[in-house]
Amino acid sequence: MNIHKLPKFKVTTGPLPASRKIFVQGARPDIRVPLREIALDPSANEPPVVVYDTTGPYTDPDVTIDVTKGLTPLRRKWIEERGDTEEVAPRPVRPEDNGGVSEAAMAPEFPRARKPRRAKGDVAVTQMAYAKRGIVTPEMEYVAIRENARLEALREQIAEAKAQGLELYEPGMDWPGGKIPAVITPEFVRDEIARGRAIIPANINHPETEPMIIGRNFRTKINANIGNSAILSDVAEEVEKMVWAIRWGADTVMDLSTGNNIHNIREWIIRNSPVPIGTVPIYQALEKVDGKAEELSWEIFRDTLIEQAEQGVDYFTIHAGVRLAYVPLAAKRVTGIVSRGGSIMAAWMLAHHEESFLYTHFEEICEIMKAYDIAFSLGDGLRPGSIADANDEAQFAELKTLGELTKIAWKHDVQVMIEGPGHVPMHKIAENMELQLKHCHEAPFYTLGPLVTDIAPGYDHIASAIGAAQIGWLGTAMLCYVTPKEHLGLPDRDDVKEGVITYKIAAHAADLAKGFPGAQRRDDALSRARFEFRWRDQFNLALDPERAEEFHDQTLPKEAHKTVHFCSMCGPKFCAMKISQDVRRMADEEAERGMREMSAKFREKGGKVYVEADEE
Amino acid sequence: MNIHKLPKFKVTTGPLPASRKIFVQGARPDIRVPLREIALDPSANEPPVVVYDTTGPYTDPDVTIDVTKGLTPLRRKWIEERGDTEEVAPRPVRPEDNGGVSEAAMAPEFPRARKPRRAKGDVAVTQMAYAKRGIVTPEMEYVAIRENARLEALREQIAEAKAQGLELYEPGMDWPGGKIPAVITPEFVRDEIARGRAIIPANINHPETEPMIIGRNFRTKINANIGNSAILSDVAEEVEKMVWAIRWGADTVMDLSTGNNIHNIREWIIRNSPVPIGTVPIYQALEKVDGKAEELSWEIFRDTLIEQAEQGVDYFTIHAGVRLAYVPLAAKRVTGIVSRGGSIMAAWMLAHHEESFLYTHFEEICEIMKAYDIAFSLGDGLRPGSIADANDEAQFAELKTLGELTKIAWKHDVQVMIEGPGHVPMHKIAENMELQLKHCHEAPFYTLGPLVTDIAPGYDHIASAIGAAQIGWLGTAMLCYVTPKEHLGLPDRDDVKEGVITYKIAAHAADLAKGFPGAQRRDDALSRARFEFRWRDQFNLALDPERAEEFHDQTLPKEAHKTVHFCSMCGPKFCAMKISQDVRRMADEEAERGMREMSAKFREKGGKVYVEADEE
Repeated sequence: MNIHKLPKFKVTTGPLPASRKIFVQGARPDIRVPLREIALDPSANEPPVVVYDTTGPYTDPDVTIDVTKGLTPLRRKWIEERGDTEEVAPRPVRPEDNGGVSEAAMAPEFPRARKPRRAKGDVAVTQMAYAKRGIVTPEMEYVAIRENARLEALREQIAEAKAQGLELYEPGMDWPGGKIPAVITPEFVRDEIARGRAIIPANINHPETEPMIIGRNFRTKINANIGNSAILSDVAEEVEKMVWAIRWGADTVMDLSTGNNIHNIREWIIRNSPVPIGTVPIYQALEKVDGKAEELSWEIFRDTLIEQAEQGVDYFTIHAGVRLAYVPLAAKRVTGIVSRGGSIMAAWMLAHHEESFLYTHFEEICEIMKAYDIAFSLGDGLRPGSIADANDEAQFAELKTLGELTKIAWKHDVQVMIEGPGHVPMHKIAENMELQLKHCHEAPFYTLGPLVTDIAPGYDHIASAIGAAQIGWLGTAMLCYVTPKEHLGLPDRDDVKEGVITYKIAAHAADLAKGFPGAQRRDDALSRARFEFRWRDQFNLALDPERAEEFHDQTLPKEAHKTVHFCSMCGPKFCAMKISQDVRRMADEEAERGMREMSAKFREKGGKVYVEADEE
Repeated sequence: MNIHKLPKFKVTTGPLPASRKIFVQGARPDIRVPLREIALDPSANEPPVVVYDTTGPYTDPDVTIDVTKGLTPLRRKWIEERGDTEEVAPRPVRPEDNGGVSEAAMAPEFPRARKPRRAKGDVAVTQMAYAKRGIVTPEMEYVAIRENARLEALREQIAEAKAQGLELYEPGMDWPGGKIPAVITPEFVRDEIARGRAIIPANINHPETEPMIIGRNFRTKINANIGNSAILSDVAEEVEKMVWAIRWGADTVMDLSTGNNIHNIREWIIRNSPVPIGTVPIYQALEKVDGKAEELSWEIFRDTLIEQAEQGVDYFTIHAGVRLAYVPLAAKRVTGIVSRGGSIMAAWMLAHHEESFLYTHFEEICEIMKAYDIAFSLGDGLRPGSIADANDEAQFAELKTLGELTKIAWKHDVQVMIEGPGHVPMHKIAENMELQLKHCHEAPFYTLGPLVTDIAPGYDHIASAIGAAQIGWLGTAMLCYVTPKEHLGLPDRDDVKEGVITYKIAAHAADLAKGFPGAQRRDDALSRARFEFRWRDQFNLALDPERAEEFHDQTLPKEAHKTVHFCSMCGPKFCAMKISQDVRRMADEEAERGMREMSAKFREKGGKVYVEADEE
């Protein structure tokens, strides 16, 4: 073990402004669900605002972070207690796992040896298997508490506040078509997982995760991609990117590394990640055959699955829906096949004149994944890469196949989500969701954007957030972020943050529109703070408190300006909020003198001084 | 005249990358409509891409820009020829027009004296008046040519290219509900204006404008706000902000100045602006009474209208729909009244216990505006300022009143657009558009965003672009931009650009979704460039070529990398586009050998290797 080469890890820790981590205990003492409580100024006369928290122990001042030790394996006991798994001799790490990199250029191994677990015998040790048997796992209870985010407490507070004459607002719940219950119960979670409508990605070899759920009757989630490529790479940088992404709200992280050192870097990421980690195993398989797609084989792919399963990857993107017959459909497109996995498999199939081994060996893949509880993210290898190619025959042919594969995976009790596009103009977005629900039997949808135009390189986080918000509203369960560097280069730290915040906006907008219980409480608290010129509260309630304060301070930097009743946009004389406060006061006085009655009378008369032009 | 104090003007000039300005001549030689032609690499084997151009003479290398002289008054002859206007003695500039600023702090006057024009007698000299009389003005022909943006030429090129066996794509036109014709004719423009469904903001005292049209059956437009406030101000900076905003695509610019020197700064902006300028006259009126809303009067407001009419403001935001009876409806909101104009008028009404003078004097306002052809932008003084307040009684009560006022304005042949919100969650956006169309008789809708969540200060350009794209698709004619500084401070130059580009994305996405003829050609050209690794073409076709190139160069800076067949996102081995090109080549070879038949046969058989789980 080359621990002498350990890199200097510098990860971002410490709470967000005015925030503290609170824990809600479940039915057993070791179910402790973290939430973030944002304190408000005493003048607000409001309880703190509690929000969902993806940041893991990194924002907990009571936890000492040591990247070389990894996080505490929260779920280990739950997994062991189930008694259906056992430690096994690990698959030995081979030079090709790290791209055959030289000893000198080799990334350090994670220093703590660990025996992988797998299912005893042929049983499925998946959340879906337990759910179907009627078992509510600790993971299910955990996510139920997490999704509620102390909504029950909020409801109590509302009742109390009302009794005291304070004004607080009910959470918004006006989505008539939604199946979201007023309170998320562990039983509801179990039922959704059993039906395949939601998944908890939770590899038994990644016991460090804080369980989270992906499904359309839950909060809309976002994924952030990280990963090195042949051009750029660094272990410490990738670990920090993961920590940084979850700090701003990423619910899962995909490691899309394609260069050397894939195996070792992934180990560092998984051991330090409190969120599920996804990968695209074909990338590593291709590295093992030195980038020659035609040299790929089922055996190499299978070996890679086991390698990554033992490390603890929580979901695998597998492009098993790209079938030989669909390749000609995609060949004539404006942008062909834009999925890396899809294009690799297309190249393999054409070289061999054979059906994809991902498709022909799909049942064997299921057998592997059920032994570790790895979820499928059935890849959309034929997603459209341009507006011109949206919703075409190739795309929907693959979607149907993904639906068939979903049923097979479910037969093996393997959890499934379905990947979606891509580039789609707004008027074609709804069809994607409708067909996905229909063909894929309501398995959770997980889309990249979609981008609603092709002409915005440098701003594709925005072009895609427009589509993401819409498809999220329609029921997409997880949105894969796009950074400003999309189509142009690898995202750096700033790009990761920009992408994550942009997607938190899209996901939250979707939650508001689908009426997720309590989603609006943060908007309401921030808007009240805005109206009352509680600047600090505005910053603290923002998705990015740092930028909000920085922007404010660019024109009004003094501390005294944090309490003034105006901002630099309009200056003191023109502040609508300030005048509006005066108006409210005046209106209240007026009310006493019967102005309401007066105005009611006025409106009764038709409320017009002028008559309509066409009534003359 | 204090021309000795002229500031150092530095405005951004010169063409955008690979672009040249072309002119399409109309029925008379002085109708010369500018468009931007983006040249492609010869290897593309495609004609240049022609796009709509808002940049004015600033990107024309044949024009010498002198800010102290102003732009050439393109429309002067058209206005004079109509023979229904005359030069009049100008209203004298008074100290209070510039906020009573001291001589020392006074902004310089624009150095070229000019006599204002107004209608002879009581006639309406508006585009609407001409349209109703069946007259197609040069302005109408100009905008027709401009909207088409050489689409006819594109169609010819497509036909030619097809004849030569080249592949080009038809412009997208699949919006079944749209009333957009395949080619925009001058007669169509006239008809839309006569019906009140579109406006050409074109004050006779702003002959420097390049005419543009705002209506839902035309390209979606965007507005950029500039303006100083009591906190910050500078003449040269504001002029450059205008030039900068139109360089990136602003179709109109609103000068929202509220500090000193309003009159003089506005003159500089108008004389140098090729796009219509809008204002909110109540801001300046309030300055004239030293910020005391209760001291406002119809006389002061009227005088301000004439002052700005003579300067050449093209549209006025007037909050005449905020009526006394509605104030109590808004007083209890989470964020009260967030429109500055609306809150000023509410304060005035409560102080006086009287109906708003904007409402009671509305016909007189129409009389003034028709004499200069100033369009109404009927202000939404009661727009919601938070998610909690969206679509409430106050908002829709005002909207109905705006509809009544629209009819009155139309009776006077005054052009009208209607301002809209604001903060609206996604599921409540459609109702805004539906009610606006219904109550306001299809007058163009002009919305600010809407923002789909309140929790994104620092990123409100994104939170609002999500709403803007959707409402644009539904038929909103112009989208008022929001910058990243919204709610926090005054936008600087970078914020203006970020806001404009973000809104170009929203507007273009709306045009794609509503099937505007030819809108997709730029997407298609960029996507082909992307697939063929023509990096320079990708940058040049982007909304922001500078950022696209800068981002690309952060990881692959060398000139040689502009032609390589991969980017730093995936590196050479993993480039889906590269593999996809290989696949396309292989597939073409396969086709020869009958693979298509093979795959067709396969699909005929049901295309399944596995049978569905529930079929077993």
